[in-house]
Amino acid sequence: MKTFYGDLKLGILGGGQLGRMLIQQAINYNVTVKVLDPDREAPCRKLCDEFVVGALNHYNTVYNFGKKVDLLTIEIEKVNVDALEQLEKEGVMVYPQARVIRLIQDKGLQKQFFKQNDIPTAPFQIISNKTELEQTTMPFPYIQKLRRDGYDGRGVYKVIDESYLDKAFTEPSLIEQWIDFEKEIAVIVARNESGDISAFPMVEMEFNPDVNLVEFLISPSTLPFEVQQEAERIAKKIADDLRIVGLLAVEMFLTKDGQILVNELAPRPHNSGHQSIEGNVVSQFEQHLRAIFNQPMGDTACLNNAIMVNVLGEEGHEGPAVYQGIEKILKCPGVYVHLYGKALTKPFRKMGHVTIVDADREKAIEKARFVQKMLKVVS
Amino acid sequence: MKTFYGDLKLGILGGGQLGRMLIQQAINYNVTVKVLDPDREAPCRKLCDEFVVGALNHYNTVYNFGKKVDLLTIEIEKVNVDALEQLEKEGVMVYPQARVIRLIQDKGLQKQFFKQNDIPTAPFQIISNKTELEQTTMPFPYIQKLRRDGYDGRGVYKVIDESYLDKAFTEPSLIEQWIDFEKEIAVIVARNESGDISAFPMVEMEFNPDVNLVEFLISPSTLPFEVQQEAERIAKKIADDLRIVGLLAVEMFLTKDGQILVNELAPRPHNSGHQSIEGNVVSQFEQHLRAIFNQPMGDTACLNNAIMVNVLGEEGHEGPAVYQGIEKILKCPGVYVHLYGKALTKPFRKMGHVTIVDADREKAIEKARFVQKMLKVVS
Repeated sequence: MKTFYGDLKLGILGGGQLGRMLIQQAINYNVTVKVLDPDREAPCRKLCDEFVVGALNHYNTVYNFGKKVDLLTIEIEKVNVDALEQLEKEGVMVYPQARVIRLIQDKGLQKQFFKQNDIPTAPFQIISNKTELEQTTMPFPYIQKLRRDGYDGRGVYKVIDESYLDKAFTEPSLIEQWIDFEKEIAVIVARNESGDISAFPMVEMEFNPDVNLVEFLISPSTLPFEVQQEAERIAKKIADDLRIVGLLAVEMFLTKDGQILVNELAPRPHNSGHQSIEGNVVSQFEQHLRAIFNQPMGDTACLNNAIMVNVLGEEGHEGPAVYQGIEKILKCPGVYVHLYGKALTKPFRKMGHVTIVDADREKAIEKARFVQKMLKVVS
Repeated sequence: MKTFYGDLKLGILGGGQLGRMLIQQAINYNVTVKVLDPDREAPCRKLCDEFVVGALNHYNTVYNFGKKVDLLTIEIEKVNVDALEQLEKEGVMVYPQARVIRLIQDKGLQKQFFKQNDIPTAPFQIISNKTELEQTTMPFPYIQKLRRDGYDGRGVYKVIDESYLDKAFTEPSLIEQWIDFEKEIAVIVARNESGDISAFPMVEMEFNPDVNLVEFLISPSTLPFEVQQEAERIAKKIADDLRIVGLLAVEMFLTKDGQILVNELAPRPHNSGHQSIEGNVVSQFEQHLRAIFNQPMGDTACLNNAIMVNVLGEEGHEGPAVYQGIEKILKCPGVYVHLYGKALTKPFRKMGHVTIVDADREKAIEKARFVQKMLKVVS
């Protein structure tokens, strides 16, 4: 039998930062890694045993890549699922499973799955065209989301009143009641083939009302224990209902009246788990490897307060990336820089992240604000 | 000016596990890495931007490799220093500096340096040939060490009485009074170009009298504070006296009467610092990068009790490596596996290490013993 630390070949669909951090961890187990990505300058290009340039949504490309590995995983869900289903039939292990990726790729199917499984989520309606949109009884304001291919805020549109309908999407989409939430929260769970499920402690997104933006992610949450327990219960239930093998990030809203509503799923390592590299006993990347290799789930306990700040390309800068302020932030104890190996910056491109660890939560927040002020990606 | 996270090219002489773990950390800073190693199957081969196969002790090979990088570092000190000196003259940054490597390569020069700088060390004599050895007034038993090229116990010989002289080395060597020590201890320090010096908390080697072997390394030490302070003072003094840029591992003996004697130096990441990856705020690899890039020194504080166990090839096994017991040890919380990507095992070859972290020191020791019992590298 092939062993994960030896002769088993792992294929990763996608060669971005999530794949990069997965490889950084996989190095510890001698895993042989092949990566497929359309960008020949992708962050994983230098760190794997073989880097293949090709389209992730192309049947033959994904199929041919998958035939050369024993186990296929993803770091982005926008991949050709038909190819994955065929590979599964031919005996390639695909984790997360093709049917899970298919479900999550489609925000309409995701919502129906929530409904069928009694998973709390905002009221919604599935819309096929403009006429259906105009006829909805959903009260304003609501959110329209394309069923497929939305990513990092693209494919999302807020319909505040009738006058916004003009610019609404005409493609198949989902409309959702606008949730005036108190807090965005997330729980990352993992499930291995044996069915063991493990959850990371809940994290919170800190919102800065002055700039009207999510400022950073903080772990662990200081929300009431019952909220954390309930969020964890929901996340574990979803992993169990899906029978997913691998990591599952569950993004949720905590409403002003204390209700938890599931927003979206990601069946892979996720931005809301980066702080686990330094902040938890095992990281989300280690946990994903353990899950897909059917190894025992690791201890997810928090070691410390950990804050994760995304490092985004500055507005007005496009071209070869220059990182300003690294030396200043390295003077701060407990500050961990993770750059993603992207040569070119553009406005709001995710160029890296910084994790700030401190036993004192307020000090951690202070340091995170300092990092945000000092570290700039310009060109 | 070239930046370490961008266009600066780092060369590493040696492509073994120390280079591998250095690269794992350097990924976080987008460092462009080239590696030179004679073994085309070296652990770093797949993880760097360019892997060059060539002899580390060959002038032209090292010189030509060094001409293509901006900063050259080492992960093994057995390299051609003449080439490094020439490269320094031609403007390549070499950290640690050629003169430091030259000194440390020669155990005789190392000892003379200790003597000249009032660094406590065991009484010694430098020996050029067999005659000088036979004429020594050093009382039995003593240790004979080849001045050059000893490694991992090779080149070391214990002379218990006159009858042992027959098999003694005839090459230039060092003889040292036999120290009946209480404990082996180590402090890793780092110094950057600006002269900032930082020390990791002292670690101890746990000796198992039943099997007469160093069993594992434990951090932090629980020896008296004054001992730790003195060991740290000595290590920092050496880094300062040497004006080294980079990491310096200082191995010491604590004698039965409480004296600290310096045994040996290594001007690079070291086996006695592996536990810092999980056990300290910054790891020795991060610290080495900060030192050679002239960045602020990181916080070396211990996060937890951390025990490091070397994973060695089992006796009687030679060939493709099979790791037994990984699944069992992954069930244990706080256990971190680091395999070194070596395809072939042989008796006592360093194939990896495992770090065990626990807030309870006794539990950490118990888990370390379990790891040692369960994890076997066979073929």
